[in-house]
Amino acid sequence: MKRITLLLLAMLLFTACGRNRPADTSSRLIVPTKNALPISGTFLDEISHDIPHQNWGEKEWDRDFRYMKDIGINTVILIRCGYRKFITYPSEYLLSRGCYMPSVDLVDMYLRLAEKYGMKFYFGLYDSGEYWDTGDMTSEIEANRHVIDEVWKMYGEKYSSFGGWYLSGEISRATKGAIHAFREMGLQCKRVSGGLPVFISPWIDGKKAVMASNGKLTREDAVSVEQHEKEWDEIFAGISGAVDAVAFQDGHIDYDELDTFFAVNKRLADKYGMQCWTNAESFDRDMPIKFLPIKFDKLRMKLEAAQRAGYDKAITFEFSHFMSPQSAYLQAGHLYDRYKEYFEIK
Amino acid sequence: MKRITLLLLAMLLFTACGRNRPADTSSRLIVPTKNALPISGTFLDEISHDIPHQNWGEKEWDRDFRYMKDIGINTVILIRCGYRKFITYPSEYLLSRGCYMPSVDLVDMYLRLAEKYGMKFYFGLYDSGEYWDTGDMTSEIEANRHVIDEVWKMYGEKYSSFGGWYLSGEISRATKGAIHAFREMGLQCKRVSGGLPVFISPWIDGKKAVMASNGKLTREDAVSVEQHEKEWDEIFAGISGAVDAVAFQDGHIDYDELDTFFAVNKRLADKYGMQCWTNAESFDRDMPIKFLPIKFDKLRMKLEAAQRAGYDKAITFEFSHFMSPQSAYLQAGHLYDRYKEYFEIK
Amino acid sequence: MKRITLLLLAMLLFTACGRNRPADTSSRLIVPTKNALPISGTFLDEISHDIPHQNWGEKEWDRDFRYMKDIGINTVILIRCGYRKFITYPSEYLLSRGCYMPSVDLVDMYLRLAEKYGMKFYFGLYDSGEYWDTGDMTSEIEANRHVIDEVWKMYGEKYSSFGGWYLSGEISRATKGAIHAFREMGLQCKRVSGGLPVFISPWIDGKKAVMASNGKLTREDAVSVEQHEKEWDEIFAGISGAVDAVAFQDGHIDYDELDTFFAVNKRLADKYGMQCWTNAESFDRDMPIKFLPIKFDKLRMKLEAAQRAGYDKAITFEFSHFMSPQSAYLQAGHLYDRYKEYFEIK
Repeated sequence: MKRITLLLLAMLLFTACGRNRPADTSSRLIVPTKNALPISGTFLDEISHDIPHQNWGEKEWDRDFRYMKDIGINTVILIRCGYRKFITYPSEYLLSRGCYMPSVDLVDMYLRLAEKYGMKFYFGLYDSGEYWDTGDMTSEIEANRHVIDEVWKMYGEKYSSFGGWYLSGEISRATKGAIHAFREMGLQCKRVSGGLPVFISPWIDGKKAVMASNGKLTREDAVSVEQHEKEWDEIFAGISGAVDAVAFQDGHIDYDELDTFFAVNKRLADKYGMQCWTNAESFDRDMPIKFLPIKFDKLRMKLEAAQRAGYDKAITFEFSHFMSPQSAYLQAGHLYDRYKEYFEIK
Repeated sequence: MKRITLLLLAMLLFTACGRNRPADTSSRLIVPTKNALPISGTFLDEISHDIPHQNWGEKEWDRDFRYMKDIGINTVILIRCGYRKFITYPSEYLLSRGCYMPSVDLVDMYLRLAEKYGMKFYFGLYDSGEYWDTGDMTSEIEANRHVIDEVWKMYGEKYSSFGGWYLSGEISRATKGAIHAFREMGLQCKRVSGGLPVFISPWIDGKKAVMASNGKLTREDAVSVEQHEKEWDEIFAGISGAVDAVAFQDGHIDYDELDTFFAVNKRLADKYGMQCWTNAESFDRDMPIKFLPIKFDKLRMKLEAAQRAGYDKAITFEFSHFMSPQSAYLQAGHLYDRYKEYFEIK
Repeated sequence: MKRITLLLLAMLLFTACGRNRPADTSSRLIVPTKNALPISGTFLDEISHDIPHQNWGEKEWDRDFRYMKDIGINTVILIRCGYRKFITYPSEYLLSRGCYMPSVDLVDMYLRLAEKYGMKFYFGLYDSGEYWDTGDMTSEIEANRHVIDEVWKMYGEKYSSFGGWYLSGEISRATKGAIHAFREMGLQCKRVSGGLPVFISPWIDGKKAVMASNGKLTREDAVSVEQHEKEWDEIFAGISGAVDAVAFQDGHIDYDELDTFFAVNKRLADKYGMQCWTNAESFDRDMPIKFLPIKFDKLRMKLEAAQRAGYDKAITFEFSHFMSPQSAYLQAGHLYDRYKEYFEIK
């Protein structure tokens, strides 16, 4: 009887583990592994602009931070603390402007989880939406003047995980008043927080720079690399001293344009003493469903290019929808597995 | 040996339960809970108009009714018994008009499951599609004249769960001939069924009233609240006596317009002796993927507004895609969890 | 103590199996079962053109071939070995033209898995994208002249599962130069491989022939059945001898047009001594999300029509996204269950 019990137990354990497959079903990579800049940071897409919400509670977020940690992520960045009337924390100032009360204080939760998992949290500024409507950033500066002070008082002094600031305006070369706005807001962030680092994540005005609501995937009138360098030289000169790192989004140009644009970005960052990060988009811009997780080889090629260009750090937009094993998009969990396979993470 | 056996069993059970997480990973709500009108009804989206099919068999539907029951749903509404050539039950009449034979009699199945779970089933009328093509409802009246009689004979006398009728034409203020059509069809439904209740679920011609196939999310020429009240006063006057409840869809206006429009709707319903329900859409109209589950806080705000307005009942479009733990959209299961958390349902 | 151990084990096993539901939750079909042409082949959508990537490794692919096998699939077809710069195998020729190195040799993997599961693998030719941009197929012929030779040398002589060729250009009646191109490429495929079969899978220029990036689902200027027959008679005459089977995509016409068009296709195939297959699309063309799995009854109606028309074989585009139990689209697993139910596969 005991032997039967043990046999049954063994069978149960064997089935539960499910690792009894022959070795020949593991993938056979034909490219050099670990030959790319690993991702060490991710945006947290709250409040989302165009990615449907996953409706996670603290339990799921806690689990996600652990998944992030397991592949080497040490930096989390709130994409924005509010977008139009939806906000992430009970901001007295923004509520008084007509914003809606959130059911959970996400800023507090993220800061706690960042402490728990030994990560740095970057706070993304408020996006009033006016800049998207009018191209003007005046109201962004005004609102964030209050938000920056308020947030530092509420959380900055309380949590050692509060590690920096993210100027959430997703500008490109043609954004009117962006230099002045970024300079003002960056300097205020540093002033209130004793000099914590500030970064931006602009987009390249490339062939895939089309709106999510647009049926088309590409456009004809993309910026040339010369024009890109000339205009960003001017912008970098204007924000130098107020911004510590720049993380260009890597998804608006084609894969064989990566080296050219990355070299320019690195040269400009070096010239103005900034860190050069890449914002490796983990969603696919080439598909009619906007947006689902990217094909691994595309992500790999972008991270390989970042490594070749000598970039300082790779962050991604973003882990929880597009790379997480618990994402509602199951392709994301497989991307996680492919990523671990390539970087030989057990 | 026995002790080892027990130890292994304990470990297995411990792992299987997975409830061994510290208490501090539960969500911390900063808004008053249970402060909103709970959902007690849902549409069943067969035949679907623009939501991809889940391909469930009876096993999945049975399980879904149990999930509904667990959060207090006591009413299920077939969104329509047929749309153009696709139908939900083997209707002799509709088959003779060229409709396709379904592989399962969904009406019979839903009525059986409603009986099993102690729910009321509302039957949604046939939608020939002509009204969408031409704006004219003549052929809807003609087809449904046959359908109403047929369905009551096939199921109405057999199932005590047959609880009412839903006039499935999704009209708005400008729908030509809707008053006449709804009056005719509503009265016939009542006549054949001994006076069972009839309801409609129109949409407000608001800023988000755009077609699913349209790339844009909003439009400029939304109706004013005064115009809305004037036109619906006229419509309600015309259908009074033939319709018992009106459940406006809540997704075509902005969140800070809810109170204003809801107050008008309630006033009109009261004036004409109808029940005032809300059709709380559980999908997100603000995202480029059309459609995935809504962010919980948006649903909460809409149900809070319905409670403030003194509404009689909340139904949703719809549970099985957007709120069910077994939905193909995993965000739905998390919405279910958030909903239970907020309403303190164990 | 032993009895408690056994009791606990029994409970565990009972729960694990989960088959303890009453029999009355199985679906009740009201149509004749097994009354349709079963699917015995599927495309493998690598490199994908407009379906987001699942990021599977060899483990997932191995499992998917088993799922295919279980429902009777004996033929797998690589949709294309490359699309523009993305390719499926380390082609010296295509790499020298600027294509990107893939991280896995998918052709080798698919051939190995086909051998393991006793299937035939068809190789889909390279798609340079120029035909989509210009409507001209000259560069397709030139590139594939090299690819066909290369691939046969690399894999054809090594794997007995290499069973045929697929001319991947998705032509329709108006495709300039298609007859010449298909003839050239088909004959070369046969020449190098000792006469292995070649097939094509064109689309009918019907009412649903709209681009995935287009917001609309249908169009007005669909081809008439007479025009279809006239033009394809000419095309078939031109490719006869170079192509062994034609598998028209079944998703561009309406369900009540199936019999008419299928009869024409079969008549033409017979006339020119080709096999007549159907490419039963398992994704839904009628929904705003492009694309998710099809509703089972739609697939059933198409396979029933193929059976009525006396077709030789049904393949699908495609199993892994739209019918697989492990698809990221959970509707696919339910479609798999409905399919098995209908064909009475245990």
